[in-house]
Amino acid sequence: MNYIYCNIINDMKKKVTLKQIAKELDVSVSTVSKSLRDSPEISEDTRLKVQAFAKLYNYKPNNIALSLKNKKTKTIGVIIPEIVHHFFATVISGVEQVANETGYNVIVCLSDESFDKEVINMEMLANGSIDGFIMSLSKETQQKGDYHHIKEVINQGMPVIMFDRVANEILTDKVIIDDYQAAYEAVNFLIQNGAKKIALITTVDYVSVGKLRTEGYLKALEDNDIKVEDKYIVKIEDIETCDSKIHYLLHSEKVDAVIAVNELFAVVTIKIANSLNINVPNDLSVIAFTDGIISKFSTPTITTVSQNGVKMGRKAAEMLIRRLEEEEHELEEYDSEYYRTEVIETSLILRESTKTR
Amino acid sequence: MNYIYCNIINDMKKKVTLKQIAKELDVSVSTVSKSLRDSPEISEDTRLKVQAFAKLYNYKPNNIALSLKNKKTKTIGVIIPEIVHHFFATVISGVEQVANETGYNVIVCLSDESFDKEVINMEMLANGSIDGFIMSLSKETQQKGDYHHIKEVINQGMPVIMFDRVANEILTDKVIIDDYQAAYEAVNFLIQNGAKKIALITTVDYVSVGKLRTEGYLKALEDNDIKVEDKYIVKIEDIETCDSKIHYLLHSEKVDAVIAVNELFAVVTIKIANSLNINVPNDLSVIAFTDGIISKFSTPTITTVSQNGVKMGRKAAEMLIRRLEEEEHELEEYDSEYYRTEVIETSLILRESTKTR
Repeated sequence: MNYIYCNIINDMKKKVTLKQIAKELDVSVSTVSKSLRDSPEISEDTRLKVQAFAKLYNYKPNNIALSLKNKKTKTIGVIIPEIVHHFFATVISGVEQVANETGYNVIVCLSDESFDKEVINMEMLANGSIDGFIMSLSKETQQKGDYHHIKEVINQGMPVIMFDRVANEILTDKVIIDDYQAAYEAVNFLIQNGAKKIALITTVDYVSVGKLRTEGYLKALEDNDIKVEDKYIVKIEDIETCDSKIHYLLHSEKVDAVIAVNELFAVVTIKIANSLNINVPNDLSVIAFTDGIISKFSTPTITTVSQNGVKMGRKAAEMLIRRLEEEEHELEEYDSEYYRTEVIETSLILRESTKTR
Repeated sequence: MNYIYCNIINDMKKKVTLKQIAKELDVSVSTVSKSLRDSPEISEDTRLKVQAFAKLYNYKPNNIALSLKNKKTKTIGVIIPEIVHHFFATVISGVEQVANETGYNVIVCLSDESFDKEVINMEMLANGSIDGFIMSLSKETQQKGDYHHIKEVINQGMPVIMFDRVANEILTDKVIIDDYQAAYEAVNFLIQNGAKKIALITTVDYVSVGKLRTEGYLKALEDNDIKVEDKYIVKIEDIETCDSKIHYLLHSEKVDAVIAVNELFAVVTIKIANSLNINVPNDLSVIAFTDGIISKFSTPTITTVSQNGVKMGRKAAEMLIRRLEEEEHELEEYDSEYYRTEVIETSLILRESTKTR
């Protein structure tokens, strides 16, 4: 096994990271992380190899419980999937507001929608830099359904508040919007104003919010006795294919309304409708989830389901700080009421892209 | 002096922060920070009071030089003024790309355009969480011209790379665009395409980039023998007054082109032009700095000066990692070539909001 050490032999003074161990042993970050926790999911051979390697390079897994007893950092760690996304930016603004009011600092890390980066970021921050997490899952984490890194942190006594992209499998405090209900109400609004052929432009199903919005859309059609047409449901996996898929829909089907799960899909729909001489809102009504900067400045301006990102961020920060500052044993962990899920209300912001009658 | 301790007497186990000390002593964060460094700018009385208080509460200023010798965190700290701004988001994307390629992690903190938050964030991150900084100054810091917190970090041997909003007073590596030249070329482009009455919609002068762009605008007019009209230069201090100031300009002056220092001012200009039946681009050409999401999706789409945020972020990360990984004394600090300023090229991205002849 000697050959695998040579690459980092010159770096022995430096702290070895999960990622370096994974690279040197040619296994995934998740395998390293689980091996160091003696997870039965990993073969004994691999576990022993990883542990030996980590020991040799003096790798220290985080010892959160210990650090928690010793000091408070007064710092909140936020992990979000991406930053070039107005919704996540507004959530961070909300977290910052409450943090400023209560004397906390905020550190933000991006998972870039990658499972490995999410694991690495949590590992890094949990290692004494912060008191607790506010996080939204990466797409890849949702796809894998592997939450060991988050459960680990919670088990060691560090509070984690999840928002927006959450998982039922993780027992912790959560802040969500009722995506199902919000989609249901938006579709109902379109039907009440005369739409009959309503398309849904969504993401792939493993992203939890996309799934819930699809279910709300389907239920609203069903309750209004409108037949579901599979060809009206456009699933966009990759932003590159967004234009061509929407163009195909509008060109081949005479839909009279579109509900898009984000602003970008909505504004692309409007641009393509214009190019096909389909008038928005007279021939086609458009509603977008997320009330961001695009919707306000697009021509026509876009009717949106506001997710109240600032409110969501504020609520998440309040819940985390309450956990951090509550007296020990004020709440019993095994109490069924111990963890709470807060639902932030959404609202439909009417603008020029929808017809009302 | 006893009364001032009572508020935090119950919190003695917790680590006291700069901000808490400032609050308890009713002085600014900057005063506390400078007092702890024995700065002659602060009166002896105040210095001694702050130092006594800090000692009593066991406050530890960061000891960067020490921590640098002992360990590498393989983490980059990024401090930006705000997050709901596409340009800064793209810079972070660029930093993330290089960090991923080279095995570094990235931590982001926001100053929210506040001097105190910038000082607090630097203090927090420099305290062992990161190996070096990439940062852009807050508006308030530029306004104050107080850079002691940054100089301090650099003096202690931690590399700092500044980007976009930089200060000449700080000797360090920098990545900038040539804002002066970019504005000059954009205005020249407008003149060559027939514009004679060109307005500039900018921010207040203490933001360095706004100042440089204004100078480039003025020089281009001068070189083309066009008289500068003060009433064509609109300075927006506060986003609330943006609409009314631009409305006043377009309503009272017959300008034929507008150069806006950001996308938001440009898209507001277009909306207001529409409401006044001024056709863009036939009656009015519009160019914006920052090639973001608004410019691509506005109707008409907006011609922009692209600042290449991703490229800027990549370059800043490369410069920082080079500093972190170079052999000691490979470069001599007192060498005039020691610090470098890299200029990222801008480009004019032609879209529908400008007329060409």
